[in-house]
Amino acid sequence: MTDTKVSSSPATEALPGSRREFLRRAALTAIAAPVASTLLAACKDEDHAQPAQSVTTSPASPKSQIPTEHGGTMPTPAAGAVTATAADQMDAMHEKGIKAFPAKTAGKGNQLMQPKIVSGVKVYEITARKIQWETEPGKMVEAWAYNDQVPGPQIRVREGDRVRMIVKNELPESTAVHFHGVELPNDQDGVPYITQPPIKPGQTYTYEFTAPNPGSHMYHSHHNSAKQVGLGLLGAFIIEPKAKRPVEKVDVDYVMILNDGMHGYTLNGKGFPATEPLVAKLGQKVRIRFMNEGMMIHPMHLHGMHMTVIDKDGWPQPAPWKCDTLNIAPGERWDVIVNCNNPGVWAFHCHILPHAESDHGMFGMVTALIVNK
Amino acid sequence: MTDTKVSSSPATEALPGSRREFLRRAALTAIAAPVASTLLAACKDEDHAQPAQSVTTSPASPKSQIPTEHGGTMPTPAAGAVTATAADQMDAMHEKGIKAFPAKTAGKGNQLMQPKIVSGVKVYEITARKIQWETEPGKMVEAWAYNDQVPGPQIRVREGDRVRMIVKNELPESTAVHFHGVELPNDQDGVPYITQPPIKPGQTYTYEFTAPNPGSHMYHSHHNSAKQVGLGLLGAFIIEPKAKRPVEKVDVDYVMILNDGMHGYTLNGKGFPATEPLVAKLGQKVRIRFMNEGMMIHPMHLHGMHMTVIDKDGWPQPAPWKCDTLNIAPGERWDVIVNCNNPGVWAFHCHILPHAESDHGMFGMVTALIVNK
Amino acid sequence: MTDTKVSSSPATEALPGSRREFLRRAALTAIAAPVASTLLAACKDEDHAQPAQSVTTSPASPKSQIPTEHGGTMPTPAAGAVTATAADQMDAMHEKGIKAFPAKTAGKGNQLMQPKIVSGVKVYEITARKIQWETEPGKMVEAWAYNDQVPGPQIRVREGDRVRMIVKNELPESTAVHFHGVELPNDQDGVPYITQPPIKPGQTYTYEFTAPNPGSHMYHSHHNSAKQVGLGLLGAFIIEPKAKRPVEKVDVDYVMILNDGMHGYTLNGKGFPATEPLVAKLGQKVRIRFMNEGMMIHPMHLHGMHMTVIDKDGWPQPAPWKCDTLNIAPGERWDVIVNCNNPGVWAFHCHILPHAESDHGMFGMVTALIVNK
Repeated sequence: MTDTKVSSSPATEALPGSRREFLRRAALTAIAAPVASTLLAACKDEDHAQPAQSVTTSPASPKSQIPTEHGGTMPTPAAGAVTATAADQMDAMHEKGIKAFPAKTAGKGNQLMQPKIVSGVKVYEITARKIQWETEPGKMVEAWAYNDQVPGPQIRVREGDRVRMIVKNELPESTAVHFHGVELPNDQDGVPYITQPPIKPGQTYTYEFTAPNPGSHMYHSHHNSAKQVGLGLLGAFIIEPKAKRPVEKVDVDYVMILNDGMHGYTLNGKGFPATEPLVAKLGQKVRIRFMNEGMMIHPMHLHGMHMTVIDKDGWPQPAPWKCDTLNIAPGERWDVIVNCNNPGVWAFHCHILPHAESDHGMFGMVTALIVNK
Repeated sequence: MTDTKVSSSPATEALPGSRREFLRRAALTAIAAPVASTLLAACKDEDHAQPAQSVTTSPASPKSQIPTEHGGTMPTPAAGAVTATAADQMDAMHEKGIKAFPAKTAGKGNQLMQPKIVSGVKVYEITARKIQWETEPGKMVEAWAYNDQVPGPQIRVREGDRVRMIVKNELPESTAVHFHGVELPNDQDGVPYITQPPIKPGQTYTYEFTAPNPGSHMYHSHHNSAKQVGLGLLGAFIIEPKAKRPVEKVDVDYVMILNDGMHGYTLNGKGFPATEPLVAKLGQKVRIRFMNEGMMIHPMHLHGMHMTVIDKDGWPQPAPWKCDTLNIAPGERWDVIVNCNNPGVWAFHCHILPHAESDHGMFGMVTALIVNK
Repeated sequence: MTDTKVSSSPATEALPGSRREFLRRAALTAIAAPVASTLLAACKDEDHAQPAQSVTTSPASPKSQIPTEHGGTMPTPAAGAVTATAADQMDAMHEKGIKAFPAKTAGKGNQLMQPKIVSGVKVYEITARKIQWETEPGKMVEAWAYNDQVPGPQIRVREGDRVRMIVKNELPESTAVHFHGVELPNDQDGVPYITQPPIKPGQTYTYEFTAPNPGSHMYHSHHNSAKQVGLGLLGAFIIEPKAKRPVEKVDVDYVMILNDGMHGYTLNGKGFPATEPLVAKLGQKVRIRFMNEGMMIHPMHLHGMHMTVIDKDGWPQPAPWKCDTLNIAPGERWDVIVNCNNPGVWAFHCHILPHAESDHGMFGMVTALIVNK
């Protein structure tokens, strides 16, 4: 039985070195067929915007008995030539995005936060303030962030832990923190004028409770929330159970927070190609905790392997069930297990296609699950 | 075993007296901690738009050893002062909305309708006509309504009952009534030119059938329906089973009809703060029958307690399952049970945040589940 | 035990002859009550835009003891007359649409494709090119199509079959084919610059694999996909299991591909009244394979009978469950069984009403399930 590696950054840990090395390693380890390997190498050659023409005839099926052809189907050679140029220009943009993945940007959200332990209480100090956030290379947006991260720091406690969160408001607006899905005493629920006063600019407010129902939960602003959550005041709040169910024994545990709106379409605060890939070894089990903090549904589609759904909002489903496209609505959390039995670089994206691809290439809610041999 | 109280107005029945008394009672009974109680009382003081400054330092955690502070984090005192004023103005609007809840408006939809009994047949006389409808205090909209209610009167019959609905059309357009989810003989299905002629302005039309499959169903216009249902021609049509399953033995049975579009975002025809709270005593079980009559999904999120999903479209799920955020699509009905084991005033809202909150405070698809000790 | 009839065109097969004959047969066989039958015949009389006034008083309930009336409810006779005229004009448009159903248009998508067998391999030759497509009578749109069909040809293979798809690109852009839901070796996954180079205009590319996990899958473009899938580069890819489960033994097997966007709201590439009805005999079982290739959810609502959900994305649900409104998100496939035990012509439509009806009548995502006696 393998032990779970809890990491907010599996890809970075698994893949020391530069981006170029990352792509090289993924290509070398993930793709078995020599022809495809050559292709992929050609595709990844940064000095050529277009793959060599020789790769275009039935490359994946050398045994094919069907004659293949190219160039002969355009209405006229002249029109064909013009079209090919436009197509090549579009392809170059698409290729550039793929080759940039995973692109470096300043800042990283959803980092696992270590609490201070004070008299047995796990203490989390969180400051909300306005920052500049780079969602993809060169794209800076205003964000309202917890501890300068979007999503905010990932908080993981254990069922029964005593937890204190000290929230300092350095925003120009009042705020409050709601622990979404956590069944707390009413006075810790974080709804201004119902369970507490708002936390005014400059003030500090403390929440304290014993971690109740385990599962994948969230914390986020519940004051002027359409704006404040939209700008980034959100994070994962995970309560590990006292005893794990057998299905929860996994090798990698990944949180994927979906968002849309003011920062564009993002996964853990970044848009493709700055999204973080999920990385596993062949045969490993990956748990993905989907959380939707946006305003729209996002049906997440994994290529190459199915997902086994085990939990909804932190509660076990009566029986696990399988899918390859999981529709995640705002406020929902869905936990799935992927049994990584198919090696390769697998696209993983929202299947509302305008959230994932434009004429200029993939963007937004796109990442990859990389299964290394 | 408690008996079910079927009520279209649990809050009103449970809470005689004025709105001020309602809030006082909710505050006194729902909140246990003295500090929070004081806070809440402060928040609810109608003569002060801002809570006293003294409540702002770690009020919920008197044992905290972390020093707290306020006022010192703004870039300059001048800027801080300006910002604080803007924040206070915003907070005052938010507070005003909360304090107004549940606000009085003219008209109440979804009222349980008593049939006439004619030779053993339950007869419902329904008139469709154009009215003015107050969705929130002072906001009047044109509605097309059944018996001057939005949603129309709640109809509850028993499996096997003989039912007659006599529909009089006083609208400027033709109409027809479809019993959504009810498995009727084809000629009672209510689709003009397929199963019947349209009911012309001024005409009366009669539907008659024996109530078949039990569950949470709906009746609504099926003629020019995007407009007619959008304007209010809709209601709950519930068929009680001959024998209740054990899971159906509840204390309060509540219908929550979601809508969007021409009347704004509404729950049972009203937007916050004019929405009706759900009220239960500690330990009681509440059944909520969600019905979406709008054009958008609405993932309804309950604070403080989970929901156990038992039925979809009136059909039992193979096994009950738990969640705190339930995504409800147009035309769907979902029945859930809430075991009210956590006292307090719990926010209950659509988690598409722009359907629930703006810079001016909560609005639209927001209500509360109040669990009184 | 009946054997499954696999057909991309059950209605056409079941109903030889003209549209008029189609409607006549549906009316004669589906409606039992003489009064309703007469009504329906009146409604279907193409020479009269309005049904006779005599049908407007309680037609479905001859035993009713409640007096009915018509014409007396308008504020003034003059206003009533004016309104009736406007209502009649609207009704005439609605009636015209219903009477045109199923309307003839040029082109039919989702036709079952017969492969060439080459050395035991099932070979499918697919050409992607730009065409004109008639979505409803007289409405021509630009489509990018596989083999001149929208959706592309329906491909059905058997688990374990060796499959080759030869794709010729006659489009002005590069393209690629992704087999959505099919768990292929990585180099057959169809994602340009990750698993293959793009297929340039004029080029031909071959995919080849052994059909793995059975179920209702799809094939579609994965290059500039928001545009290319939106314009029609999509189709059903069904892998029949080696051994069917008992629940899969059905009489009619129907694929319903939902789409929105550039071609309007469509079912299998057509908008109402050009959509194809589903036809079954009383007592038969129909399997419907919903597939969403659009950008929006579509909660499909069937009148008169419930649907039993058996599969999600080609994977069996832990236990079948029932509903009458099934929310289908982009990229999802849901398989349901309808036990056709209720005779008649049953409306079957997306319950986002603006996807199905306007002031001018039904349009878009509307069809019917016709259960003949």
